[in-house]
Amino acid sequence: MPRYALLVEYDGGPFAGWQRQADQPSVQGAIEAALARLEPREHTIAAAGRTDAGVHARGQVAHCDMAKAWDPFRLSEALNFHLKPAPVAIRACAAVADDWHARFSAVERRYTFRLLARRAPATLEAGQVWRVMNPLDLGAMQEGAAHLLGLHDFTTFRSTMCQAASPVKTLDEIRIEECDTGAGPEYRVHLRARSFLHNQVRSIVGTLERVGAGSWAPEDVKHALEARDRAACGPVCPPDGLYLTGVGYPDDPFC
Amino acid sequence: MPRYALLVEYDGGPFAGWQRQADQPSVQGAIEAALARLEPREHTIAAAGRTDAGVHARGQVAHCDMAKAWDPFRLSEALNFHLKPAPVAIRACAAVADDWHARFSAVERRYTFRLLARRAPATLEAGQVWRVMNPLDLGAMQEGAAHLLGLHDFTTFRSTMCQAASPVKTLDEIRIEECDTGAGPEYRVHLRARSFLHNQVRSIVGTLERVGAGSWAPEDVKHALEARDRAACGPVCPPDGLYLTGVGYPDDPFC
Repeated sequence: MPRYALLVEYDGGPFAGWQRQADQPSVQGAIEAALARLEPREHTIAAAGRTDAGVHARGQVAHCDMAKAWDPFRLSEALNFHLKPAPVAIRACAAVADDWHARFSAVERRYTFRLLARRAPATLEAGQVWRVMNPLDLGAMQEGAAHLLGLHDFTTFRSTMCQAASPVKTLDEIRIEECDTGAGPEYRVHLRARSFLHNQVRSIVGTLERVGAGSWAPEDVKHALEARDRAACGPVCPPDGLYLTGVGYPDDPFC
Repeated sequence: MPRYALLVEYDGGPFAGWQRQADQPSVQGAIEAALARLEPREHTIAAAGRTDAGVHARGQVAHCDMAKAWDPFRLSEALNFHLKPAPVAIRACAAVADDWHARFSAVERRYTFRLLARRAPATLEAGQVWRVMNPLDLGAMQEGAAHLLGLHDFTTFRSTMCQAASPVKTLDEIRIEECDTGAGPEYRVHLRARSFLHNQVRSIVGTLERVGAGSWAPEDVKHALEARDRAACGPVCPPDGLYLTGVGYPDDPFC
C-alpha cells in the first residue's frame, strides 16, 4: 500500500488530544474519518507526537496507508475538503517509503510555548496562550532554563503517568524570547529534543514561570532537576499555550 | 458624572459589530451589560470606530459615564470580570474630562489587515485572517498602495451605504509587510488616517489583493481611484482579517 506523510496543523482546543478515543473528538479521529471518505474502510494513522487535550500543532507529522496511489497534492486537497469544519488542516503531503514511520523515523521534536503576561483576559488569543497576570523577568527565566539544557534525568519534569522507559533525555535547545504581537508582553519558550517525556514541556514552563514571577530563584530549577523527584516540580502549566511546531527526520519528506 | 476612557480589545467573530442592536450580540451591548452590573441602569457608551460584524480590535477606545467615582484600575477589573466569557477585554481605563469624547476627540485611527496566503484552510487563525489561495506579489501590492497615499476623493473605495459627508479623506499611511507567524506567508496592510469611510479598508485591501495576485496591474489602482466610481473598485474583502489597532488623541488618556 502506498504510504503518505502528512504535515498537520490544528487548533487543539476542541479536541481531547491527538489520540483516537471512543467517545470524544480527537485529531486522529478527524483525519481518519476524512480518509474513510476517500477510501471507505477503517484507517489507522500514526503521528510523531501524541499531543494532549488542548495542545496545538503547527507541524505535527503523521502517515497514512492508501489502497490506491494518490497524487500527494490531490490527497491533501481532498483531506482538507473532508476535514471541514474541524480546525485541522493538511499543510503538505508526500509519498514516502513503506518502512518510513512518522513516529519511529523522527529524530527531533520542536515545541513552542506561549505565555501572555497581562491583567486583561485574552480575547483573540483565548485558548492559544497561557495568560499569567504577573509581569515576568526574562533574564531570570533564561538563567533558570539554562540548567535544563543537555543530558539529564528529567524525573522531576515528568508526569507520573509517563510511560517512557527512561527519564533520561537530552534537551538540545531551550530558548526564551520576548515579543509583542499587539496583545501585550508575550514570552515564547522554544524547546527541541529527540523526544520528550509526558508533560515535560508543561512541567518545565510551569516551573520557569515561577522563576519569571520571582517566586523561585533561577538556581532553584537546578535543585529541582537534581532532586529527581516529581514533587520538586513547579506547577504544571495549562495546555493552551503549547504548540508542536515541527518534527525532524533524517530526510525531510516535505522538501 | 465622572467619565472614563476604556481601551478595548475584542474578537469580532461572535458579534454583529460594535454597535448595539436589538436582537443580535454586539460589543457595545456586552460592555453596557457589564456596566449595568456595576451601576444598575441603562448605559450608553460611545466608541472611536464603529467596527462592522466580524471585525476585531486590539485598541478600540470607548468612554462611559459613571454615577460614582471609580478607581480606573478597579473599574477595568470589574468590567473584565462581568464581561466573561465574551471575548471582550478592557486593557486599560483612565479618568477623562467631562467633554472628552472617544469619537469626537480622536484625531487618528489605525487599522491592520492580515492576509494569509496558502492552500490549506486556516485553523489556529480561523476567523482572524483572510486566507487567499494564490501567492501574492508584495512589491506589486506596495506599488499599487502608494497611489492611495495622501488626500483623495475615495468614492471608489467607499460603501454605497457610507454616511460620511464627504468622500475626500487623507490616508496618512499605507504600509504592507510580509511576515510568517508559522502558518505560512502572511501579508499585513497597515493603514492610518484621521478617519475612514465605511468599508474603505476592506475595499482597498480587496483591490490590492487583486494586484498581488497579478489580476490587476499596480497602476490600475490609480485608475480605479481616479474613476471616483464605486463600480471601479476591486472585490471588497471579508472582515475576518481586519483589526482596529489603535486610536490617536491629542493627549493619550492611557499614558
